[in-house]
Amino acid sequence: MNNTLLLPLPGNDSLADALATRIDAEIGKVTVRRFPDRESYVRIESPVEGRTVLLCCTLDRPDDKIMPLLFLAEAARDLGAEKVGLVAPYLAYMRQDHRFQPGEGITSFYFAQLLSSVVDGLVTVDPHLHRHRSLEEIYSIPCRAVRAAPAISNWIRTHLPRPLLIGPDRESEQWAAAVAAGAGAPYLILEKIRRGDREVEISLPMADRWRDRTPVLIDDIISSGGTMIEAVGQLRRVGLPPPVCIGVHAVFADQAHADLLASGAGQVATCNTIPHPSNRIDIGDLLAEGIRSLLTLPPSSPE
Amino acid sequence: MNNTLLLPLPGNDSLADALATRIDAEIGKVTVRRFPDRESYVRIESPVEGRTVLLCCTLDRPDDKIMPLLFLAEAARDLGAEKVGLVAPYLAYMRQDHRFQPGEGITSFYFAQLLSSVVDGLVTVDPHLHRHRSLEEIYSIPCRAVRAAPAISNWIRTHLPRPLLIGPDRESEQWAAAVAAGAGAPYLILEKIRRGDREVEISLPMADRWRDRTPVLIDDIISSGGTMIEAVGQLRRVGLPPPVCIGVHAVFADQAHADLLASGAGQVATCNTIPHPSNRIDIGDLLAEGIRSLLTLPPSSPE
Repeated sequence: MNNTLLLPLPGNDSLADALATRIDAEIGKVTVRRFPDRESYVRIESPVEGRTVLLCCTLDRPDDKIMPLLFLAEAARDLGAEKVGLVAPYLAYMRQDHRFQPGEGITSFYFAQLLSSVVDGLVTVDPHLHRHRSLEEIYSIPCRAVRAAPAISNWIRTHLPRPLLIGPDRESEQWAAAVAAGAGAPYLILEKIRRGDREVEISLPMADRWRDRTPVLIDDIISSGGTMIEAVGQLRRVGLPPPVCIGVHAVFADQAHADLLASGAGQVATCNTIPHPSNRIDIGDLLAEGIRSLLTLPPSSPE
Repeated sequence: MNNTLLLPLPGNDSLADALATRIDAEIGKVTVRRFPDRESYVRIESPVEGRTVLLCCTLDRPDDKIMPLLFLAEAARDLGAEKVGLVAPYLAYMRQDHRFQPGEGITSFYFAQLLSSVVDGLVTVDPHLHRHRSLEEIYSIPCRAVRAAPAISNWIRTHLPRPLLIGPDRESEQWAAAVAAGAGAPYLILEKIRRGDREVEISLPMADRWRDRTPVLIDDIISSGGTMIEAVGQLRRVGLPPPVCIGVHAVFADQAHADLLASGAGQVATCNTIPHPSNRIDIGDLLAEGIRSLLTLPPSSPE
């Protein structure tokens, strides 16, 4: 019997499929459903005793997923699993990392404490680290934060001619710089210039110099799409062609994907950390390496 | 400044209102909302430093409520609350108290561990104790399990002539016996007689003897209503008048309330542990006594 068992929560079957051969693990089965009174029911259908169990559950829309996830982690431990890890390509609750208003909960910390209390390790992709510099600042378990940049750089190199990477705001610089370096392309960051209370203008340094490039907007999370849509408008107004919009995580709240396409964006491409029709960039290999590192398995041999 | 602060979560304002004067506490304010990406945001709008904070949150449909509740508990502690308690008139996840099938999670235990890790004490009303004999078996914090029986007995005495208490199944005997004793009324328990795999018949001992009584079905939780509806049918078939149906907790999944009324039930009356149009029986005094006991305040003087 293979000693590593991937247990996909509902909606995470392709994730488990993508990982199984890469980390030489078996895929198990869980049942998750709700009773009529809306309480969650969980059952692990595969033997876990003495094994390393990896729960697979990407954490967009986290509140609907958290009880089944916590219960499955506890059940796995109860049933004798040696270790219980979590593979969450998208990690939730990273953005409220500060008390912006008096009385607010710092949910990034509380959520990290909660997960740390039920699993022994965590692998994720590009968590939104801003005021927290690393996951270890808030998580008390071993974590691996896989960077999607190599996969994105590779996709850009093979799909887009003469790319110009553009970060829509200062926070996005870490992604834009890393992806640009890997793609051998230049990058720049849009700056918001505040004129008075409401009027915000985005400056595009030396737009003329980049007219023959394919503009490629890049950010870590596309949620409401507001930042990206504003940037698309600005690029179009200075005469650039429809930009390719790349997000690591396709959260896409409500109608955000349609809104972004309607705003004048060209192609929208995302990594497969959250299943979505815009997924173009496969992070399977990188994620598998992160898991191997967490489990202290030897790295896979280069092909 | 009053040292005890009641913080009602959304939907629990009447609960806090009912308790404030009874336990001499102030009512504070929280904001709970969701970001577009469906993560929860919480903010405590009232000063909590050095105070005893009582989060008020009944826990029917618990999965939608748990993240705000956990976050508010953590935030209160973060902000200097001396103690953080939970007043949950209905307590969730009490029914999966055993591994009925291999691999199942014993969620009553996991949920108890979770709540025990974030609050310092718990007050609830008639938790569904079946295989667990007391909350202390699964919760590691001080708990008060208030019994609604005195309030129900009192309501029956003042509203129903010549009541006959009837428990729809063996599990309901604890409630039926206690309420009957308080109401000075007889009680009996319906028995399921299994004939073959599917056919279940309910026997009503000595039905003739009780024809001049008001039949009063009583159970702790009315969820899908199935047990209660089956019992109503059986009572009607042996010629009893439409029974009054009493539940401590008005969970009423989906259309259960309408189904129960349509099944031939007379009045449906519930305690106000979960806000519902069928609430008739006020457990405010009993709940307040439970809180006073948890906070080791002197009992209120009899009026």
